[in-house]
Amino acid sequence: MASFTEVSGGITAPEAFVAGSVYAGIKATNTSKPDIAFVYSTIPSVGAGTFTKNKVKAAPVRLSQTHIRFAETRAIVANSGNANACTGVVGIDHAKRMVKATAKALGLKEKSVLVCSTGRIGVPLPIERMESAIASGCKTGVDRDGSHRAAEAIMTSDTFAKEIAVELELYGRKIRIGGIAKGAGMIDPNMATMLSFITTDAAIDKKTLQQSLSEAVEHSFNRITVDGDMSTNDTVLMLANGAAGNPPIRDTDPEFEEFQDALRHVLFNLARMIVEDGEGVTKFVTIQVRGAKTRLDARKAAEAVANSILTKCAWFGGDPNWGRLMDAIGYSTAKVREEMVDIYYDGLIAVKNGMAAETPFSKLQEVVAHPRFTITIDLHLGEAEYTVYTTDLSTRYVELNMGE
Amino acid sequence: MASFTEVSGGITAPEAFVAGSVYAGIKATNTSKPDIAFVYSTIPSVGAGTFTKNKVKAAPVRLSQTHIRFAETRAIVANSGNANACTGVVGIDHAKRMVKATAKALGLKEKSVLVCSTGRIGVPLPIERMESAIASGCKTGVDRDGSHRAAEAIMTSDTFAKEIAVELELYGRKIRIGGIAKGAGMIDPNMATMLSFITTDAAIDKKTLQQSLSEAVEHSFNRITVDGDMSTNDTVLMLANGAAGNPPIRDTDPEFEEFQDALRHVLFNLARMIVEDGEGVTKFVTIQVRGAKTRLDARKAAEAVANSILTKCAWFGGDPNWGRLMDAIGYSTAKVREEMVDIYYDGLIAVKNGMAAETPFSKLQEVVAHPRFTITIDLHLGEAEYTVYTTDLSTRYVELNMGE
Repeated sequence: MASFTEVSGGITAPEAFVAGSVYAGIKATNTSKPDIAFVYSTIPSVGAGTFTKNKVKAAPVRLSQTHIRFAETRAIVANSGNANACTGVVGIDHAKRMVKATAKALGLKEKSVLVCSTGRIGVPLPIERMESAIASGCKTGVDRDGSHRAAEAIMTSDTFAKEIAVELELYGRKIRIGGIAKGAGMIDPNMATMLSFITTDAAIDKKTLQQSLSEAVEHSFNRITVDGDMSTNDTVLMLANGAAGNPPIRDTDPEFEEFQDALRHVLFNLARMIVEDGEGVTKFVTIQVRGAKTRLDARKAAEAVANSILTKCAWFGGDPNWGRLMDAIGYSTAKVREEMVDIYYDGLIAVKNGMAAETPFSKLQEVVAHPRFTITIDLHLGEAEYTVYTTDLSTRYVELNMGE
Repeated sequence: MASFTEVSGGITAPEAFVAGSVYAGIKATNTSKPDIAFVYSTIPSVGAGTFTKNKVKAAPVRLSQTHIRFAETRAIVANSGNANACTGVVGIDHAKRMVKATAKALGLKEKSVLVCSTGRIGVPLPIERMESAIASGCKTGVDRDGSHRAAEAIMTSDTFAKEIAVELELYGRKIRIGGIAKGAGMIDPNMATMLSFITTDAAIDKKTLQQSLSEAVEHSFNRITVDGDMSTNDTVLMLANGAAGNPPIRDTDPEFEEFQDALRHVLFNLARMIVEDGEGVTKFVTIQVRGAKTRLDARKAAEAVANSILTKCAWFGGDPNWGRLMDAIGYSTAKVREEMVDIYYDGLIAVKNGMAAETPFSKLQEVVAHPRFTITIDLHLGEAEYTVYTTDLSTRYVELNMGE
């Protein structure tokens, strides 16, 4: 049973964190919505991060990857409306100027500030306007209730702000973990920018924090993306400031696992919100592969099914179409023996030994009509498992991605 | 300059080949259209074939892979409406019975007959009806003008029959190569069944024929599919009967290259017809990657761009959107240095050194508005090249693949 409970407050639920936003006029369309978000620990804190594996990396990603190595990480500044990607040396200079403006206003070392951008690719930032906005906004725009405003400021085509926080007791202390996120175009999540910022008032050293975050990302955000297939800007950042007063969490403590459960819950729910808010998404589909010879085989089979254009179109139409699943499993390069494969739709058997099972087609159609369902594929070749989360592919999705 | 000319007659253009079709009532929908095709050499002939690499293989694929090893290959029998895939041991028995009926009617050894199926997955063939139809049809239904009828009988969701033939002079003899093909759902060609049958009256030994076919497939059908990502039934078969009376073509002869040029032309044009007849396709896009460190790098980058859902949606909308190309190149796992990448749309530079080039956006939009255009990506890291052929992704495509 989970030993944590959900609480309100998002990234400002943990003690001694403030957040907020400011308007700088970055987006091409006329809007007065704030477009720069801030998250800041009012006391010393440490940071951890996971970054896109795409070889084409936005300037802020390159800069934050350097800054995250620094012992203290205190603040995050992030803009929407412009990805500052494919912008060359000018882009790097602009990312540095965002950091510098933030550090100066908050009286921090530049290396203790991280930076993110999301939005259009290939266009320089309106950096002067942004510097002015940051200079005032990162002090006057932030407070202890600012999580929602920060979550709104990083939205691009998101239709709602994504926030969550949990509370748990560790070492006799009340500890909180909060998070915000943004996604978009998430039918194939690999190609849309995903940003997420996590805070905790737990005391935990920098190395253990990185280990904790990496493990939780692997079971959440990485299951809605294909490794190595990430966008130019994808970033997950986490700050921990120790305000809860616990003895530092060590990875050998039993408390570490409780902390991980809570952190995984935060990240998984942010990931699920991103998928469900994907452009034109009508179905959230869990693909479980089990009985694989190796974990890599399980993953290859799950990802082939999750990324098949034809299976996604069928789900949109409410068509179980297990033949398309068999096809995808077969070309996945996973070790597969056709005559061993069983497939279930929410527990109803659709395929037995590689052939049609006895479940009536109408029963399978009922499952695929649901907004959320699970497809389980048993390869019967071993013990390895892997789960991924995906969506359907709708006509609306194509319309939304046809361009301007 | 090409030393061959296109001629009419398809697979029956080469001497001593007959083809045709018969109706067996295989399709679920009521139709009186013939659904079994035959191709047959009236004199001894040899065969070659390339088959799907999907681990889930239809029964006819498994059987034909065995039969193709036999010294003499004389006939092909192929049905549409039912793929005979995911049908277990019953499926293998049915494929054998199709071969047996054909061999018996034509007085051939069973091993000299090849078999293909395309259509619905997971449903047994109506084999009794098919045996009767084959028994009469493979004699009375075939003639020297039957190529078009055979091409029609293997159609599934194809909107037109795909045929081509060429003629060339080799060793002072007139030689012909003919072909038919079918495809469907070819937006992502990897997942649709592709069948193609090729005939030639050239004299060529079995081993050289296989080498010749494999090389030509690599530069045509394999460029519209991703290796290892083929459907359960994909098959290309070729018969050569020596009726032209030339001395057997050897791969060390200069004539071998002329023969290859002609064969590549036949296969490339069948592949192009398949792509352009894809469900809901509005654009035929050539992706050329050059300047790659290795051929595998060039291929990874080209295939990542060709298979990106987001780039395909943008092309449908006439949006050049080179940012999505940079993103796909970056996650392709090819060796890439962002600041070295140039991208051209029909020769107009869109990206220079990884950033927006000077070509006005409106000029790029004009290119992407065309039904056929070429995107050239220069990685500037080496000498290796690779080209793939792909399509856009339309709302109509999703509608057609939503299922029943």
